[in-house]
Amino acid sequence: MYGIGERINGMFQVVKEAIREHDAQVIQELALRQVAAGADALDVNVGPAVSDAKGGMLWLVETIRAVTDVPLSIDTAKWEVMAAVVPQTPGEKILNSSKADPEIASQYVGLAVEHGAGLIGLTIDGDGVPGNADKRVELGAQLITIAMEGGLEMDKLFIDPIILPVNVAPSNPGQCLQAIAQLRLFADPPPHLILGLSNVSQRCSNRDLINRTYLTMAMAHGLDAAILDPLDRDLMEAAVTAELLLGRTIYCDAFLEAALSRKTVS
Amino acid sequence: MYGIGERINGMFQVVKEAIREHDAQVIQELALRQVAAGADALDVNVGPAVSDAKGGMLWLVETIRAVTDVPLSIDTAKWEVMAAVVPQTPGEKILNSSKADPEIASQYVGLAVEHGAGLIGLTIDGDGVPGNADKRVELGAQLITIAMEGGLEMDKLFIDPIILPVNVAPSNPGQCLQAIAQLRLFADPPPHLILGLSNVSQRCSNRDLINRTYLTMAMAHGLDAAILDPLDRDLMEAAVTAELLLGRTIYCDAFLEAALSRKTVS
Repeated sequence: MYGIGERINGMFQVVKEAIREHDAQVIQELALRQVAAGADALDVNVGPAVSDAKGGMLWLVETIRAVTDVPLSIDTAKWEVMAAVVPQTPGEKILNSSKADPEIASQYVGLAVEHGAGLIGLTIDGDGVPGNADKRVELGAQLITIAMEGGLEMDKLFIDPIILPVNVAPSNPGQCLQAIAQLRLFADPPPHLILGLSNVSQRCSNRDLINRTYLTMAMAHGLDAAILDPLDRDLMEAAVTAELLLGRTIYCDAFLEAALSRKTVS
Repeated sequence: MYGIGERINGMFQVVKEAIREHDAQVIQELALRQVAAGADALDVNVGPAVSDAKGGMLWLVETIRAVTDVPLSIDTAKWEVMAAVVPQTPGEKILNSSKADPEIASQYVGLAVEHGAGLIGLTIDGDGVPGNADKRVELGAQLITIAMEGGLEMDKLFIDPIILPVNVAPSNPGQCLQAIAQLRLFADPPPHLILGLSNVSQRCSNRDLINRTYLTMAMAHGLDAAILDPLDRDLMEAAVTAELLLGRTIYCDAFLEAALSRKTVS
């Protein structure tokens, strides 16, 4: 399970204020805490409340890169921000994200290949989020084709079938499970399958329980990456246990500690 | 999720002593506590330490029936015990369990049909527990065929693909997930798929975490019944949350309480 830490996001009040005040310490601590907790990469999102999205993103990247070299997921819906920030991001990075429309996806694939970056491709197009599994698979297959044509290796492609909150779209989590299982079969080696996990429980009670339950269900169908909260220890333990049960790690009595303390703060 | 409470089993010291001393109160409290916690049925197993297995089982059945009418899962590997106890068990019951060898399975199907009982069929035969998913599916299909020929409706058949401890058989949990998904497709309506859940974590650390993680992973593949510990509240909450995420219940803020407090002590 490739875990991308979700906490550096301007949607959170403490991060929003840190960006506005250029308080590097807050951001760097949040970066290091997530990595220490087991995050493989860090998502970076300025959020909706910063007027200069490009400047905010560049400051975040520079600030985080001063303390860790884990891959950074450059999270913006604006092409001009992505195109400006990616070339100025040292080290490994992932473009988060592209839609599946051919002209849009081709542009993002090109930028990713040019900079040796990964790419998260959403199964959404001009018609919006699909209301069934089939359309998700169709758009995911489209992303795979465009990535292959553009020279992006499958190991660099992360397909996100888009999870919606279970309280407003009850059939959506089941559809995503089906789409994940089917999209794993579309290429060999397969692309990564990823979810923005926390979205499944937006405005729900028992959010943590819903998140960790869905994560393990999706892993059972082939999900191998997620944008998630690595500071949620129960969630990380559930992910480690699911890997064990899928035969990806071998049991030892300290299997949790062995998996979750392998990373050291860099 | 059809949950069969596992706690009335002579393997547990307190139950063993209660059987030996005919202490009805201990057994009846354990029955009622499991039902109140959400068990749909109760497993009844005298365990290895009682010399008169038939007498012990009959006393347990009578003792439990005095306080609750939930279905009882008559859990014995001995045909003579099963054949003697089932006719004397009032109300709903499930035979737990038959192997998949044709001559054995036919006998159990006959007994189940004669008494309107359910039947748990194990995907094991003279060659032992299969070492892969395909053999499990083959034996499960054999059980389905024998049940159909014997007049046992699919709603009364529970196929158990047999989960082994993850610390001794690392690829086994994954094989069971595959077998569950495939066996769901073998009949319409499908048989129930069941597991003796706690076995996955025998002699492991973090047993509860392993149990509840595997339960939700298996539910994502079509498991709809389990022999489990209903007194493990975290486990029951995970099961309820998985049902929500599979679209089988509709979200409300009190979805846990709504599901787990629906049963009253009878």
